[in-house]
Amino acid sequence: MSATARPWTMQTIARRLLAEWLGTLLLLAVVIGSGIMAERLSGGNVGLALLANTLATVGGLYVLIEVFGPVSGAHFNPAVSLVLALRGQLAWTLFAPYVLAQLAGALMGAWLANAMFDVGVLQVSTKLRSGTGLWIAETVATAGLMLVILRAPAARVAAVVACYIGAAYWFTASTSFANPAAVFGRMFSDSFAGIAPVSAPAFVAVQLLGAGIGALIHRQLGPAQG
Amino acid sequence: MSATARPWTMQTIARRLLAEWLGTLLLLAVVIGSGIMAERLSGGNVGLALLANTLATVGGLYVLIEVFGPVSGAHFNPAVSLVLALRGQLAWTLFAPYVLAQLAGALMGAWLANAMFDVGVLQVSTKLRSGTGLWIAETVATAGLMLVILRAPAARVAAVVACYIGAAYWFTASTSFANPAAVFGRMFSDSFAGIAPVSAPAFVAVQLLGAGIGALIHRQLGPAQG
Amino acid sequence: MSATARPWTMQTIARRLLAEWLGTLLLLAVVIGSGIMAERLSGGNVGLALLANTLATVGGLYVLIEVFGPVSGAHFNPAVSLVLALRGQLAWTLFAPYVLAQLAGALMGAWLANAMFDVGVLQVSTKLRSGTGLWIAETVATAGLMLVILRAPAARVAAVVACYIGAAYWFTASTSFANPAAVFGRMFSDSFAGIAPVSAPAFVAVQLLGAGIGALIHRQLGPAQG
Amino acid sequence: MSATARPWTMQTIARRLLAEWLGTLLLLAVVIGSGIMAERLSGGNVGLALLANTLATVGGLYVLIEVFGPVSGAHFNPAVSLVLALRGQLAWTLFAPYVLAQLAGALMGAWLANAMFDVGVLQVSTKLRSGTGLWIAETVATAGLMLVILRAPAARVAAVVACYIGAAYWFTASTSFANPAAVFGRMFSDSFAGIAPVSAPAFVAVQLLGAGIGALIHRQLGPAQG
Repeated sequence: MSATARPWTMQTIARRLLAEWLGTLLLLAVVIGSGIMAERLSGGNVGLALLANTLATVGGLYVLIEVFGPVSGAHFNPAVSLVLALRGQLAWTLFAPYVLAQLAGALMGAWLANAMFDVGVLQVSTKLRSGTGLWIAETVATAGLMLVILRAPAARVAAVVACYIGAAYWFTASTSFANPAAVFGRMFSDSFAGIAPVSAPAFVAVQLLGAGIGALIHRQLGPAQG
Repeated sequence: MSATARPWTMQTIARRLLAEWLGTLLLLAVVIGSGIMAERLSGGNVGLALLANTLATVGGLYVLIEVFGPVSGAHFNPAVSLVLALRGQLAWTLFAPYVLAQLAGALMGAWLANAMFDVGVLQVSTKLRSGTGLWIAETVATAGLMLVILRAPAARVAAVVACYIGAAYWFTASTSFANPAAVFGRMFSDSFAGIAPVSAPAFVAVQLLGAGIGALIHRQLGPAQG
Repeated sequence: MSATARPWTMQTIARRLLAEWLGTLLLLAVVIGSGIMAERLSGGNVGLALLANTLATVGGLYVLIEVFGPVSGAHFNPAVSLVLALRGQLAWTLFAPYVLAQLAGALMGAWLANAMFDVGVLQVSTKLRSGTGLWIAETVATAGLMLVILRAPAARVAAVVACYIGAAYWFTASTSFANPAAVFGRMFSDSFAGIAPVSAPAFVAVQLLGAGIGALIHRQLGPAQG
Repeated sequence: MSATARPWTMQTIARRLLAEWLGTLLLLAVVIGSGIMAERLSGGNVGLALLANTLATVGGLYVLIEVFGPVSGAHFNPAVSLVLALRGQLAWTLFAPYVLAQLAGALMGAWLANAMFDVGVLQVSTKLRSGTGLWIAETVATAGLMLVILRAPAARVAAVVACYIGAAYWFTASTSFANPAAVFGRMFSDSFAGIAPVSAPAFVAVQLLGAGIGALIHRQLGPAQG
């Protein structure tokens, strides 16, 4: 942008980044916070904990997309922003700011969850997540997410994406992170929902692979309707 | 209003107050009643009890907003009425009547739940709820609620608000009261869903703070679309 | 009707009665069948069983209203047919046929559930359900149902009614039968979802009282919008 | 088709078959994958496992119909394709390719679930499922599914069909396979969600019977509206 960029443009950009930052912050607060609550209350039954964590995430994600979608597109996810930039649906000048807003939001969302649940704001996960099954799962999860985002009917995109993530928490062996910003934020929660930093790079790599696969399948299927 | 106020105006106001009173009454009956039922049936598993309480609240709140929204706006919440009055979306002459209707409804909703479940109509909660984590949680919960109310697409506001509360039951450490009338009503139920009167003032204070924060964030994001 | 009644009229009536019969049959099969399944699988945790029974009922009722609503109005409930006849929204000549179709469907729905679950087709419930709390609960449950049916936005009536019943399973102490045909059908299932015949008359009486209260509240609130 | 078939026609057919193959693949991955996850995490409580399996299936099926419906009609089910071909809503030349795509997808969906959960890709179920109750249940489940597909309002068909399957997981004694391709795919998973090959033919037979019954009931009810 030149020095003569119009004020309303700067304001629009600021609003979009605010939406990406705050939306990702709240998304991670929902994912991690409900994970901590569920782990505390479920009496050791991990299935019950994941069920509560899933329903909270589905409800929260639905709301965040409805609320922030009209402002920024509600990506909350660097893999989504990358694919949309490659497809010409996000200006490249906005790509890096979007990703930074998402990562900052993810970190602060983890901190907010930690603060609300009195577990110490600053912490790092020790939960190892690796292996072929999990990497296949993350590839599938992110390919599916990308396909769903690119093809869902515009009027119902929030419900469709939220339901997809809810299903993917259970049908993928990794509980479907499907989002490099979610990986980043969850590194800072030593809980049910966390991921050890050493496990993060492989997750992000297969997520980017999956996002690309999802975009390719979308192209094979032809233009989405509605 | 003058002595020459037209009858239909009085009728409209009476209908709005009836809707706020009855809607808040039923909301508290749902929250407390399903809390008692869930506590009784869940065999000591608090996670399962909160899950049932959450789903009943989400379903009930969705219905109440769909049914009473066209009549009164379906606030059921003094913090919401206050923000809307400050924003010029609720006449100040209606503010006190709305809040009185909400508080009366909340009290009678608790009594109705107590009567249905044969636990003694008149009771007071002994459940202490305080601490920094809970106060941060109530601030976040109410800020989020306000933001969601001000920005949700009009056609889907009932679903969006209900899903938000469902997520907030789990992602905030306080299970998201987010409503001074709910605090008031829950004081009169010595159950899973109750709150001791001594814990109430701080909850209400941080809820009002949160409502203000939500309204400010809404302004930063610019006008909502749709 | 005279002997010269036009064929298409008879066909329309037959289709409406088929819809009421089959819809009520499937509703009771859902309520009782999912109750039996839930009781069997929940390992003695009644809260978990009711949660599964609730979700199956919400999903099933939503589908039945969407599918049969355009044909017959999807009453499936003599109390609803009575109120609509009194309000002039159902022809009185159709009232008795509607109720008979509903009762026949309810009975056969119980038998179908019994047959699918190999528990003996012909049985009678021994589950006593009585007491002031339960009768208040059934009054409230049916008043709420009637209010919701009369005021829900037409485009979302199936979702609103289904969510109402889901919430009412938990917030009313009686798990919300709210339907004389449901009472009738559940008499023939000696399971989790049953009701002993001796408990039935009082349930039906307070349901009719509740339906009347719901209709009166609806009138006080003025015409529904949309 | 002749050798002069236009390229865009071949492309359209290829896209439809891709959608049926990939949609059925993902449907089976959701059903089997979430079944394995649920069985692992539920601490031996089969009711909790089925609840999680149900919610994942409902969410996943909703998404798949929204995403692939505009491309291929989202049958994912040979019984559905057969009825639609008989009704003239699917060209007979496409019937065999549709069924082959569905069966190939079902098999590969099972393999994908097995790979993600590290249980050995190639396996065969040993879970026997037979008996009069189960066969009645599958007949009812498939009749209901067909009726719902033929009569659901077009704008909400994804939600209605997904909710139907969710209810049918619980109200039918068989947990509602209702789909010959699902039977085929589940033969290759030795898990909670599997079915032994010896039990498969009877399931498919009663499913086809049920689909026919559903189509006949649909005709009796007259044309669906909307």
